[in-house]
Amino acid sequence: MKAEIISIGTELLLGEITDTNSAYLASQLPPLGLDLHFMSTVGDNQQRLVDTLQQAWERSNVIIATGGLGPTQDDITREAIAELLHEEITIDSDLVKRFEELFSYYKIDMPQSNIRQAGVIPSAQIIPNPRGTAPGWWIERDNRILITMPGPPREMQSMWTNELLPKLQQRMGGTVILSKTLKTFGLTEARVDELASPFLSATNPTLATYAKLDGIHLRITAKAAAASEAEELIAQREADIRAILEDHVWGADSDTLEGIVGALLAAKGLALACMESYTGGLLANIITNVPGSSKYFRGGLVAYTNEARAAFEFDAQLVSRHGAVSAETAEAMATTVREKLAADIGIGLTAVTGPTEIEGKPLGTIFIGIDDGQCRQSFTRNYPGNRLQVKQRAVTSALFELRRSLL
Amino acid sequence: MKAEIISIGTELLLGEITDTNSAYLASQLPPLGLDLHFMSTVGDNQQRLVDTLQQAWERSNVIIATGGLGPTQDDITREAIAELLHEEITIDSDLVKRFEELFSYYKIDMPQSNIRQAGVIPSAQIIPNPRGTAPGWWIERDNRILITMPGPPREMQSMWTNELLPKLQQRMGGTVILSKTLKTFGLTEARVDELASPFLSATNPTLATYAKLDGIHLRITAKAAAASEAEELIAQREADIRAILEDHVWGADSDTLEGIVGALLAAKGLALACMESYTGGLLANIITNVPGSSKYFRGGLVAYTNEARAAFEFDAQLVSRHGAVSAETAEAMATTVREKLAADIGIGLTAVTGPTEIEGKPLGTIFIGIDDGQCRQSFTRNYPGNRLQVKQRAVTSALFELRRSLL
Repeated sequence: MKAEIISIGTELLLGEITDTNSAYLASQLPPLGLDLHFMSTVGDNQQRLVDTLQQAWERSNVIIATGGLGPTQDDITREAIAELLHEEITIDSDLVKRFEELFSYYKIDMPQSNIRQAGVIPSAQIIPNPRGTAPGWWIERDNRILITMPGPPREMQSMWTNELLPKLQQRMGGTVILSKTLKTFGLTEARVDELASPFLSATNPTLATYAKLDGIHLRITAKAAAASEAEELIAQREADIRAILEDHVWGADSDTLEGIVGALLAAKGLALACMESYTGGLLANIITNVPGSSKYFRGGLVAYTNEARAAFEFDAQLVSRHGAVSAETAEAMATTVREKLAADIGIGLTAVTGPTEIEGKPLGTIFIGIDDGQCRQSFTRNYPGNRLQVKQRAVTSALFELRRSLL
Repeated sequence: MKAEIISIGTELLLGEITDTNSAYLASQLPPLGLDLHFMSTVGDNQQRLVDTLQQAWERSNVIIATGGLGPTQDDITREAIAELLHEEITIDSDLVKRFEELFSYYKIDMPQSNIRQAGVIPSAQIIPNPRGTAPGWWIERDNRILITMPGPPREMQSMWTNELLPKLQQRMGGTVILSKTLKTFGLTEARVDELASPFLSATNPTLATYAKLDGIHLRITAKAAAASEAEELIAQREADIRAILEDHVWGADSDTLEGIVGALLAAKGLALACMESYTGGLLANIITNVPGSSKYFRGGLVAYTNEARAAFEFDAQLVSRHGAVSAETAEAMATTVREKLAADIGIGLTAVTGPTEIEGKPLGTIFIGIDDGQCRQSFTRNYPGNRLQVKQRAVTSALFELRRSLL
């Protein structure tokens, strides 16, 4: 089945915003057995939109359109589809009532223009939008499916996941398609491919690898007549992969390393503190991006210079003997901050982030020290990259090693 | 003049990468007087690409295509254009020689497939690619301009800026079009629009506002027969805007607040240190994103808990009296870190970042303290938003106030 995606909005043609909806939707179609042939962007111009829809209607089986469903006069997706299909728009009174309730709940007068969003054509089924006022449309006519969704990614993704994806799955042959993403760190994509190669050519479940900032992701996608069957296929393949990649697998789906480390610390009732040098606070920042991190994170020291190290009563001799970027210094940083902030676990992180090499160590050299009061250990890594990439990689490595030491 | 952008590559239709080239190019076209009507994405399928090019050739004056210029068999942009224009591809021997020199410089055997990238049709002028092997093409035929560029954004942007933009400017009537972006902070977009309204309707130079993470940007774009004339128009309008928006204007074009603050500190020979609570290290992290920041940044303290504050010998009574998020505490944090790290200037930052309110203060409440040894002051701001947005806004506010205090 041929699919086509159409993004609607003059703001896209002015380059004011980058269209992320198309890539999101594109990635959702292969497991449905849909073959995406074209993506197009068109502005808020009714004639050009009708032409674009007409072309899509002629060459594709499934057309997915986003944007142009707002309440203002330049939002013309509804009118263009009515023109394409030679249907009339009427106002749906149930929708108007829902809008009125929504606005009265927020104690705002409903602008008259919002009534436009309650317009619908006879062949369109209304798809509710729990995150906004613009509803979507599901149209099945002449052996084609035409779907419209609002442009804001939050509204679009929620409508897609909860309403339209299940509907499309059902229409695509009553099969259920489920995915799970396993997240790994510490292996190159080539190495993951090599290790997982027996499964990469399988057709059900399929397996695909993706290189991301926090490591290599593996997406398992299974097709089956029932959800339980698809889940079983995924669980088996997940077990295969975990057996091969072992503790390089650190999480799945929406997991983040900082979230997992935080949950482990909270579960064990342990308090963490960190001391950084040239990552300049990024480790503390990432740890505290997790809501509720104050339950297990005491705080951090950022020692960017010798003066700062001195203020933290850090052993200057150690630095002059081993270097500011060294295993010994990383370990001592872990101990220093652990004691200073009365934490259970201290983590020290030091890396060469550029612009020049430090103490003869090249850009991308990373040392991580962990002290949990009983055992002190250090790890070294090397990742080429620019300043911001090295900072990011150093922090990911530190969180990954911290997770291993907590398990 | 009607323009159209075509992105080529099956990886885009699989959603494996998000197309950022189209938005970049789209934003470049309005100052050229080019009206972008469509953007399309098509996979590595020669027939579908020829169809898409044919349609663009029929409806647009200027067609800009990116991608599909690699050396492998699935890169078919050259072949599709040759088919569209009924021309023959021949191998350009100068290009082959350049490739051979390049590969021999890097001591790599040139794969035979690279020869394909030296293919060219009679009506195409070769555009050099200093950052890769794939050259671009500039085709003028039948009152149309067709441009091809490689897909990797680094290669595309360099080719566009250095070669194709000047060429297009010249073809669009021999006029020079220049832009300058002024960056402001501390005013809403509505307020900037109101203040700048006398200039928003002007046609040369034009003025447009954009809401960004680091404040409201104003882009001035001038058209003239010569660069000096366009520069003069921009300089006059810049002076108008600076007179109205005063010290809300903190920079221009590629300036960043952390870069400007860093340059001011370095020029004055001053050392900075920062103490943060609930922004969790983001301020230190942003400051140290600037290469060479070790020249003026001593380090930072992240006090996420009372234990951390105690370790930094921070006055616990002050916190219990005024609250962890208060002007008094922010000022005391500035003084504490200034003294502790023997810096010239200390900055303290504390904010309510959620998930819950703190001490009755709502999410988004921000306090900034600055102590330069002579004068101690504090500032308060309030920005609604989620956890990460509040962290970002708090840091931007802190850097903005630090810049003002340094001037």
